[in-house]
Amino acid sequence: MEGKINSITLKPVGVVKRQGEAVRIEVFPEFASALKGIAGFSHLWVIYWFHDNDRPESRATLQVHPRRDPANPLTGVFACRAPERPNPLGLTACRLIKVEGTELEVEGLDARDGSPVLDIKPYIPPGDALPEAVTPEWVKRLSPAK
Amino acid sequence: MEGKINSITLKPVGVVKRQGEAVRIEVFPEFASALKGIAGFSHLWVIYWFHDNDRPESRATLQVHPRRDPANPLTGVFACRAPERPNPLGLTACRLIKVEGTELEVEGLDARDGSPVLDIKPYIPPGDALPEAVTPEWVKRLSPAK
Repeated sequence: MEGKINSITLKPVGVVKRQGEAVRIEVFPEFASALKGIAGFSHLWVIYWFHDNDRPESRATLQVHPRRDPANPLTGVFACRAPERPNPLGLTACRLIKVEGTELEVEGLDARDGSPVLDIKPYIPPGDALPEAVTPEWVKRLSPAK
Repeated sequence: MEGKINSITLKPVGVVKRQGEAVRIEVFPEFASALKGIAGFSHLWVIYWFHDNDRPESRATLQVHPRRDPANPLTGVFACRAPERPNPLGLTACRLIKVEGTELEVEGLDARDGSPVLDIKPYIPPGDALPEAVTPEWVKRLSPAK
């Protein structure tokens, strides 16, 4: 076993592009072959970078009122999906509408325009689908439900 | 808008510890307050680092036979969950059994002992729970279902 790992380096594999309601993931050409077979899945996980929150003060934030709403209880960032977190990784399940070359048209991806995409994974039930998962009351009051 | 982001740096926020069947996430003490409220969730997403695959040849691998089984079709790494990928990020939904200080006892986390944990997020239906998601035939033949 090697010693403790202190730092990990990632490189973007694509970028999020928003045009009105349409959202596309532009995968960089050098990763084109990593998309082989992706059209067989209806939904994907996208891990992206909250690039607007890649700042020391945002990465040092450990508790927030979710949605910046004081009506939501002060919550640890590992207990909510806020972009302020030590490693500002975004995670969203989205529907894959169309694959055109290295462009993926998707629905339901809440990443901002220009967000670097770090990984794309297929959504695979039943391991990923846990409709029975329990959440606190404040989550249930959110709208839309996330 | 700034220029293209070429490199992103993460730091581990904890580590996976396996002892027999028991699996724990040891969150580093400096992130203790980020756990506030986590016990209200039954399930978590864990984003971890496939540290055994943080090697240039593994990160350059863009297609694999899933599970290293030639019976599975040659598949792009963005269309499967293989640890070989440009950014070796692991993503697993797991059940939160117990919180003791900064230690989370979990069930269903398939990360190896010693894997750096990069982020922890609550599992929130219905956005995360898509039991209707469609997968190709080769995925349906896998056992367990992932």
